Amino acid sequence: MLRLSPEGSRRFSQTERLEVHYGGGEANVALSLALLGEEARFVTKLPLHAFGENALRYLKGYGVDTSCILRGEGRLGLYFLEHGASQRSSRVIYDRAGSAFALSTPEEYDFDKIFEGADSLHLTGITPALGKNCARLALLAMREGKRRGLTVSFDPNFRANLWTEEEAKRCFETLLPLTDILIASSDGLSVLGLSPTGEDEEKTAEAAKTLCERYGLRAAALTMRGHISASENRFSALYYDKTAHFASPYLLRIVDRVGGGDAFAAGLLYALKQGYDGGTAVEFATAAGALKHSVEGDANLASKEEIFALMKDKSGRVLR
Amino acid sequence: MLRLSPEGSRRFSQTERLEVHYGGGEANVALSLALLGEEARFVTKLPLHAFGENALRYLKGYGVDTSCILRGEGRLGLYFLEHGASQRSSRVIYDRAGSAFALSTPEEYDFDKIFEGADSLHLTGITPALGKNCARLALLAMREGKRRGLTVSFDPNFRANLWTEEEAKRCFETLLPLTDILIASSDGLSVLGLSPTGEDEEKTAEAAKTLCERYGLRAAALTMRGHISASENRFSALYYDKTAHFASPYLLRIVDRVGGGDAFAAGLLYALKQGYDGGTAVEFATAAGALKHSVEGDANLASKEEIFALMKDKSGRVLR
Amino acid sequence: MLRLSPEGSRRFSQTERLEVHYGGGEANVALSLALLGEEARFVTKLPLHAFGENALRYLKGYGVDTSCILRGEGRLGLYFLEHGASQRSSRVIYDRAGSAFALSTPEEYDFDKIFEGADSLHLTGITPALGKNCARLALLAMREGKRRGLTVSFDPNFRANLWTEEEAKRCFETLLPLTDILIASSDGLSVLGLSPTGEDEEKTAEAAKTLCERYGLRAAALTMRGHISASENRFSALYYDKTAHFASPYLLRIVDRVGGGDAFAAGLLYALKQGYDGGTAVEFATAAGALKHSVEGDANLASKEEIFALMKDKSGRVLR
Amino acid sequence: MLRLSPEGSRRFSQTERLEVHYGGGEANVALSLALLGEEARFVTKLPLHAFGENALRYLKGYGVDTSCILRGEGRLGLYFLEHGASQRSSRVIYDRAGSAFALSTPEEYDFDKIFEGADSLHLTGITPALGKNCARLALLAMREGKRRGLTVSFDPNFRANLWTEEEAKRCFETLLPLTDILIASSDGLSVLGLSPTGEDEEKTAEAAKTLCERYGLRAAALTMRGHISASENRFSALYYDKTAHFASPYLLRIVDRVGGGDAFAAGLLYALKQGYDGGTAVEFATAAGALKHSVEGDANLASKEEIFALMKDKSGRVLR
Amino acid sequence: MLRLSPEGSRRFSQTERLEVHYGGGEANVALSLALLGEEARFVTKLPLHAFGENALRYLKGYGVDTSCILRGEGRLGLYFLEHGASQRSSRVIYDRAGSAFALSTPEEYDFDKIFEGADSLHLTGITPALGKNCARLALLAMREGKRRGLTVSFDPNFRANLWTEEEAKRCFETLLPLTDILIASSDGLSVLGLSPTGEDEEKTAEAAKTLCERYGLRAAALTMRGHISASENRFSALYYDKTAHFASPYLLRIVDRVGGGDAFAAGLLYALKQGYDGGTAVEFATAAGALKHSVEGDANLASKEEIFALMKDKSGRVLR
Amino acid sequence: MLRLSPEGSRRFSQTERLEVHYGGGEANVALSLALLGEEARFVTKLPLHAFGENALRYLKGYGVDTSCILRGEGRLGLYFLEHGASQRSSRVIYDRAGSAFALSTPEEYDFDKIFEGADSLHLTGITPALGKNCARLALLAMREGKRRGLTVSFDPNFRANLWTEEEAKRCFETLLPLTDILIASSDGLSVLGLSPTGEDEEKTAEAAKTLCERYGLRAAALTMRGHISASENRFSALYYDKTAHFASPYLLRIVDRVGGGDAFAAGLLYALKQGYDGGTAVEFATAAGALKHSVEGDANLASKEEIFALMKDKSGRVLR
Repeated sequence: MLRLSPEGSRRFSQTERLEVHYGGGEANVALSLALLGEEARFVTKLPLHAFGENALRYLKGYGVDTSCILRGEGRLGLYFLEHGASQRSSRVIYDRAGSAFALSTPEEYDFDKIFEGADSLHLTGITPALGKNCARLALLAMREGKRRGLTVSFDPNFRANLWTEEEAKRCFETLLPLTDILIASSDGLSVLGLSPTGEDEEKTAEAAKTLCERYGLRAAALTMRGHISASENRFSALYYDKTAHFASPYLLRIVDRVGGGDAFAAGLLYALKQGYDGGTAVEFATAAGALKHSVEGDANLASKEEIFALMKDKSGRVLR
Repeated sequence: MLRLSPEGSRRFSQTERLEVHYGGGEANVALSLALLGEEARFVTKLPLHAFGENALRYLKGYGVDTSCILRGEGRLGLYFLEHGASQRSSRVIYDRAGSAFALSTPEEYDFDKIFEGADSLHLTGITPALGKNCARLALLAMREGKRRGLTVSFDPNFRANLWTEEEAKRCFETLLPLTDILIASSDGLSVLGLSPTGEDEEKTAEAAKTLCERYGLRAAALTMRGHISASENRFSALYYDKTAHFASPYLLRIVDRVGGGDAFAAGLLYALKQGYDGGTAVEFATAAGALKHSVEGDANLASKEEIFALMKDKSGRVLR
Repeated sequence: MLRLSPEGSRRFSQTERLEVHYGGGEANVALSLALLGEEARFVTKLPLHAFGENALRYLKGYGVDTSCILRGEGRLGLYFLEHGASQRSSRVIYDRAGSAFALSTPEEYDFDKIFEGADSLHLTGITPALGKNCARLALLAMREGKRRGLTVSFDPNFRANLWTEEEAKRCFETLLPLTDILIASSDGLSVLGLSPTGEDEEKTAEAAKTLCERYGLRAAALTMRGHISASENRFSALYYDKTAHFASPYLLRIVDRVGGGDAFAAGLLYALKQGYDGGTAVEFATAAGALKHSVEGDANLASKEEIFALMKDKSGRVLR
Repeated sequence: MLRLSPEGSRRFSQTERLEVHYGGGEANVALSLALLGEEARFVTKLPLHAFGENALRYLKGYGVDTSCILRGEGRLGLYFLEHGASQRSSRVIYDRAGSAFALSTPEEYDFDKIFEGADSLHLTGITPALGKNCARLALLAMREGKRRGLTVSFDPNFRANLWTEEEAKRCFETLLPLTDILIASSDGLSVLGLSPTGEDEEKTAEAAKTLCERYGLRAAALTMRGHISASENRFSALYYDKTAHFASPYLLRIVDRVGGGDAFAAGLLYALKQGYDGGTAVEFATAAGALKHSVEGDANLASKEEIFALMKDKSGRVLR
Repeated sequence: MLRLSPEGSRRFSQTERLEVHYGGGEANVALSLALLGEEARFVTKLPLHAFGENALRYLKGYGVDTSCILRGEGRLGLYFLEHGASQRSSRVIYDRAGSAFALSTPEEYDFDKIFEGADSLHLTGITPALGKNCARLALLAMREGKRRGLTVSFDPNFRANLWTEEEAKRCFETLLPLTDILIASSDGLSVLGLSPTGEDEEKTAEAAKTLCERYGLRAAALTMRGHISASENRFSALYYDKTAHFASPYLLRIVDRVGGGDAFAAGLLYALKQGYDGGTAVEFATAAGALKHSVEGDANLASKEEIFALMKDKSGRVLR
Repeated sequence: MLRLSPEGSRRFSQTERLEVHYGGGEANVALSLALLGEEARFVTKLPLHAFGENALRYLKGYGVDTSCILRGEGRLGLYFLEHGASQRSSRVIYDRAGSAFALSTPEEYDFDKIFEGADSLHLTGITPALGKNCARLALLAMREGKRRGLTVSFDPNFRANLWTEEEAKRCFETLLPLTDILIASSDGLSVLGLSPTGEDEEKTAEAAKTLCERYGLRAAALTMRGHISASENRFSALYYDKTAHFASPYLLRIVDRVGGGDAFAAGLLYALKQGYDGGTAVEFATAAGALKHSVEGDANLASKEEIFALMKDKSGRVLR
């Protein structure tokens, strides 16, 4: 997906130049995992034109395995992002209808090739929101992954600009029983009927427990966010695997609000894959998520070394 | 329509920032006429979001009457433009499917209001290329204009990325009998079955005569272009109203290749409206078209004074 | 007025490029009112050259009625703005002497046309500071407005770079008896002999009361600001109409310090015009003022919907 | 003087950012001479504010002796420059009224200090165009220079935006009898009653002869320009010191049109000071002038080595 | 290698921002071949820091096989490029001493891995110019390539900033007997004792013949350049394989002068690999080289389709 | 030294443009002193190429005496700076090996000329870190300065990227006995065997006392920093001259983290030179250091007036 945003804190109405980034939930997670050193294969369908090429080159440059990305007719989905500041919220205008991916059918994808050598599968709630084809594809991918014994993680993020809460709920409830690890923001769970739990540790643990039991999850990871303004957030997280592991919180000065959840997800998946214990895993994932907020673009460009360094020293001292 | 182009002579593959312009055939003509001092009402349908607002504000700022522009669901059509240079052609990626305008139906437009006080109507071949709705709209608008006694001008420009030559031809042949003044590039007439005439005055006059007779036109204006490279063109034109009036030619150093034809069209419509004779009209229109090639963006931002000045002195001396 | 500012937090001494905005007290209020949906007519005199045109086009684009703006000889007033940060204050270099507006005489303005259909008039203390002609014009405009039964609002802001406190005081005291609604910053009232009241609610209410009684005002609106640094302010306001209505305060991360008072004024005038009660009006105006600080340029580009949204939810969450 | 120009080939009406340069006829000559290795003292009056400082720092950085520059009240004169291209001329909007220099009186300048150690004085026709004070200053400076035995050079360039041809002529005729070396463009001499001579060598030599005789000049240097378009000029020159020395011509692709004459003047003054013969001097000056057209800003940033290299090899090969 | 260049036609002395590109002779050829669809493996040594990563990511994104690139201590070689214009030459400041590649020894490279599956090897004269290690590496690589039966191509380009003509000659004469195909500019052969042949077809063919005989080459390809100015060149080429094949010439408007020879080399190597006949091969290579001059950066970003299109139609028409 | 940094908060991996600044410890102090009105002579060796010229011009523009700067072979040392934000630290990549300065020998410097008319000498710990030549030069300069009765100040800042703590310690212990005034960050003293004292006033005073006694210093100035994040620091300082003088602390929003210590040093040296008492001196120096953090680039561009204004009013109000 192509992301176009006015420079700095300019508004859409003041746009003479748009900054170009590439992103999208699963792409961000794949790139982040590749940067951390994992093999990550990203699957989508991209148009044949130059901007489709650009997206591909971006992923390849960062080491993402793009061999299963389809190419063909259709647009490149795009969205406009206006960076918020202070009391002014960031705003998104989606322009994704008719994208090559949205138009692609599950039949075009070769799951044997896609899952070859893979041990886990990650999906977000945005994929099924892109239309019937994509909803079918998400379900099929999860089933195929499950059947092959992969660990399935799912982030049920909800975009009000793409569908209604009811549609999302109905869809997510078919996907969650196939999910091993749920990764979500604690405030984003209202689509599943939970009340927002904010920064309340007890209520957040309660919510995670409820979800694990309701959907038979192996674990649930919930980010916890305190909204001070569009420029400042508190940020923490819970990893719940019967035991509740809370990360120590960060006070974030936000450079780029988008992709924090994906950075957290990638950090968590990486940490679990390395066999870190729950407490370390959630600290790693939260540090990864925190760093993302200081990086322009959708994807977390923080290295493993930076994440570990942050876990040890939050001072932000200059390194020279 | 939103136009997004890499800075300077950067390629699509080198795009970190996109420059934003607004344009589209009829919009360019309307803006240019408004700048020249004519009342110009532009009709389209724009989405409700911020970039729809931007397009509207752009037109209003230049004095275009936007009171008949509809607002509603759908995308803002957009296109990506890579500026060519030397032997490298400019390239366009259209991304217009599903635009609010393309989705709009003729029934949404109130022709009584649209044509109130108007004495002429201008359309280009791109409008009917946007889909069935737009093709019906173009035809209906011409009929309604004709019925009210307006002078109808039409530029049958053909975009291979939007439809086939056959589709275009079939459509244009329904529109041309309703046309009073045809405005086209002499090389662009192949869609109507004519051979390209390049810079050959005799053949160009022949082509104009043929068209006038075949479609019962009052007059035909044909721009003539010598392609030296993407950076340099020769540019001239014929205005044929039984008599052939040729403009003196320009050697253009091209800053922005898009919109030259629209600038010429606006110049011609303005000149005819002022009652200039055919020779002066074609000189005025050609000077307007020439100046456009030195202006970034789709629209000609040259004033009447500049056009007249160029007609008198082609030296390009600094004015201070 | 043309505003030229170095990019980002660059200093004047590091200026290789200047960002261009257009503004000025009354222009900002007019634009903001137009954006909120009110009819707003702005009156000034602009030079004939291209930057005069630019200023005009900017206002027209946002829907301001520019039909009473005079054009003629003289400069376009301009100012240089260096954005402050942290402990470094924003700085302004005025370069307004000899502007077309400053040179214009009251006799050039046709008050019958200017006030046609109007129900209110807004002026700031900067207009009379621009010289004798402007001071006469301000007084005359207020008298003419008053005579026609308009509601007159006045913001007695004082610019030390333009005149002395004594000159300002003498002038303001001729204007305030003609004023219905005073809109000012509580710390900016020293020119009228009041001590700065900072964020003290009681003292601010006292000051408002004093002013209403002293000048026979219908109401007084005072913004209250806590200066943490050039990057951070607390921001609140009082609307006093016999009763003191205080707005809930905001902690601002400042993107652009200029125009906060004008945004507040426009918000208040809009709210009163809609018939909101005093409490809602001051909340609306304060939210408008708060949002302005997050927007580049002089004018508040926040919509009614954004202002209402902020009044309900100050979290600055991303909207997608 | 501050120069503000839209980026690249943008028009004034498309200005979101202005590029900042500093310049002015005599300043350009002084900077160029300093860069070539001569001691050059520039005299003017600059305002006290940050942009006055910037102008000063710019000159000091390039080694110009700024010890005689006065500081005080007034504006910094500025001008807006729109770069032309192809058939579209470059345009200048002057905004120099009320500058500190224009307001300064001859009495403020200490000629003993100014001329200490100097052997030549250069002035342009723009200085007396800035008002009565400056006209008096120019005359006085020439007289004082003359009295001290300096070689006086004068470039009678005429700016229609600043005064009329008659005013200029009257003034220039008081200055030319004090002039030793006249440096001008052959087409710019109409203010002195000569017809433009274009690129005609014979007529140009005739004009130079006439001027030398009429005003008792020691020599006259005339640049000769062929106007192909705003992007392309032919450029040559004559140096006439009883004998006519013509430089070989250049075909220029113009990057920045302003300051070509000043670069030529500095080149000539440098060459004469080094004792080059007339033929070498005019080749050197013309090469300097040619190079300037490829450099952004008012001043010629070409070194002596580059000028000599161009005199030997006009191929423009990459140097690596 | 990192390339840093002032924006547009700014000079080094006007540099507030530097544009970043990555390049270097062999890297440009590898990237170009990968873009054309060939498998291309690039071998060098890059530092461990972020800019080393950037260079790697750039190559990977374009599909270059980077698996044999070493990483380790040392700098990233860099050069500053000032774009020339008109009579002002482009200038290069090399800053390559102490680069990780220059410090690397031949022993660090595993030729079995490097040449696995390869059928050709390309080197330029810049590699041995970087120091003794690199000179040894170049020689060893050629021997190892030759021993394995690869086709060896060599471009003996000479950089006066890196070594003397004598040093270069001595080195090249050890490499040329190992060379199958020589690719050079006809004017760049003076280092081998030939006189520049400019655009003279006969002399160029003579030079190619001499070289083939002297060094036992299979073929020699020589680009031919007519230097009009830094903005304009004529460009053609000869491919000599006993028979002399000349390409039709182009008149280039130069956007970026660097990398034209590498683009030509890549085009030629691609064409020969496809089995095109000599005439087609040199047309393809010349078209590739011509297009490069219109592309910013060191590498040719033109696709196969664009090159073929240019071979058929040199008009530079907009594609839409 | 040339500093290259990605724009805004972009990471090294997102660099398409690098912003250019010039700096280096002693250069920053010299420039700051010159700006404050002191005569400051900076000594180094710069390469002959254009960027060496640029560095020189930058210093000359700000009034630094550059008459003792040597020119000659070698690189211009450079470093890449990535601006940190929030939890992400600023990062520096040094690329200084082989610089003209690092290659210069003490014998090249003429100390009689260097110290002519001087009354003080300032050095930082970075100079001796650049290699044996520079370490010898630092020692020799201090001895020569001392011998001539100059006040010697030294900032023992340590860069882990340049040498080890042991090497630094060994070197600093030869320089500190020659030092009159030590200026350091309290946390940076670990290289001398002291524990970091953070913001603890008592411990900081203790450390200063220890240093004064151990090395026979006249005074020690220690900045104290509270690390909240890369975007926010608390900043204060101690000046210890038997008596401990503490400055009142600032909460900094960091625009540019580099050069805070140099700005403090320059402020202190200026204040002591003016004869301010210890308390005022440390307040002045700390205000100078605080302001630097709001200024882009290495050097403090704050004027004396701004520093005094900040000492009186920390509100950061807009000045207009």
